[in-house]
Amino acid sequence: MASIFTKIISGEIPCHKIHEDDLFIAFLDIMPVTKGHVLVVPKKEVDNIFDNDDTTLAAMLPFSKKIAKAIEKSFECNRVGISVIGLEVPHTHIHLMPISNLSDMDFTKGKLKLEATEMSEIAEKIKANLAI
Amino acid sequence: MASIFTKIISGEIPCHKIHEDDLFIAFLDIMPVTKGHVLVVPKKEVDNIFDNDDTTLAAMLPFSKKIAKAIEKSFECNRVGISVIGLEVPHTHIHLMPISNLSDMDFTKGKLKLEATEMSEIAEKIKANLAI
Repeated sequence: MASIFTKIISGEIPCHKIHEDDLFIAFLDIMPVTKGHVLVVPKKEVDNIFDNDDTTLAAMLPFSKKIAKAIEKSFECNRVGISVIGLEVPHTHIHLMPISNLSDMDFTKGKLKLEATEMSEIAEKIKANLAI
Repeated sequence: MASIFTKIISGEIPCHKIHEDDLFIAFLDIMPVTKGHVLVVPKKEVDNIFDNDDTTLAAMLPFSKKIAKAIEKSFECNRVGISVIGLEVPHTHIHLMPISNLSDMDFTKGKLKLEATEMSEIAEKIKANLAI
């Protein structure tokens, strides 16, 4: 069965898209830990990040850098942190999050519940800061 | 002033080394969240991961993959998770940790205090599983 991310990539399920290229798509995490929390997902559905082919693996951080730089410009933060967990959705995804302290990356705390309009505003803000 | 990681790379400060190549070194985190917690550090000292040059950035996950596969073989876990925070040491470092649940990646909880002999055993175990 196709993962929820494959359904997002195919357009079957909507998302707040930030950017995509041949290999990856970036969109807002629907259950953000912080405002500006973005997922980077390879279009090829592979569960464990370290089972991706070398071409995909090598392109993952350079693609993420473009998104991270736009997030940094969009939100007050020290930098953008990275987390790859993968215990819930069996399709590789990199969490990119603007952080100023450790608790901004704490996945064990409650997630934010943002209105669709605010999610759209956040996505537009990040997209406006993309240097692509 | 050279970062603590640059001093480890130069040999000025000892570490439990797992592996190194021209661009990166991998060694045990001295304050592990879980047993098998390894740091991957670029030899060139750059604070923010996304300020590394594209060659370094592209090689970072393929190098980490070798280490992660050895950690997976060495410890009972669901997979190896990735975390890049960088709020403490201003020298890029990727945390690789064997995880089975979310709390295995919780940096806000207390760190493990392991004896030097156990740290050496853990390093030897991971090194024995390296497919390099």
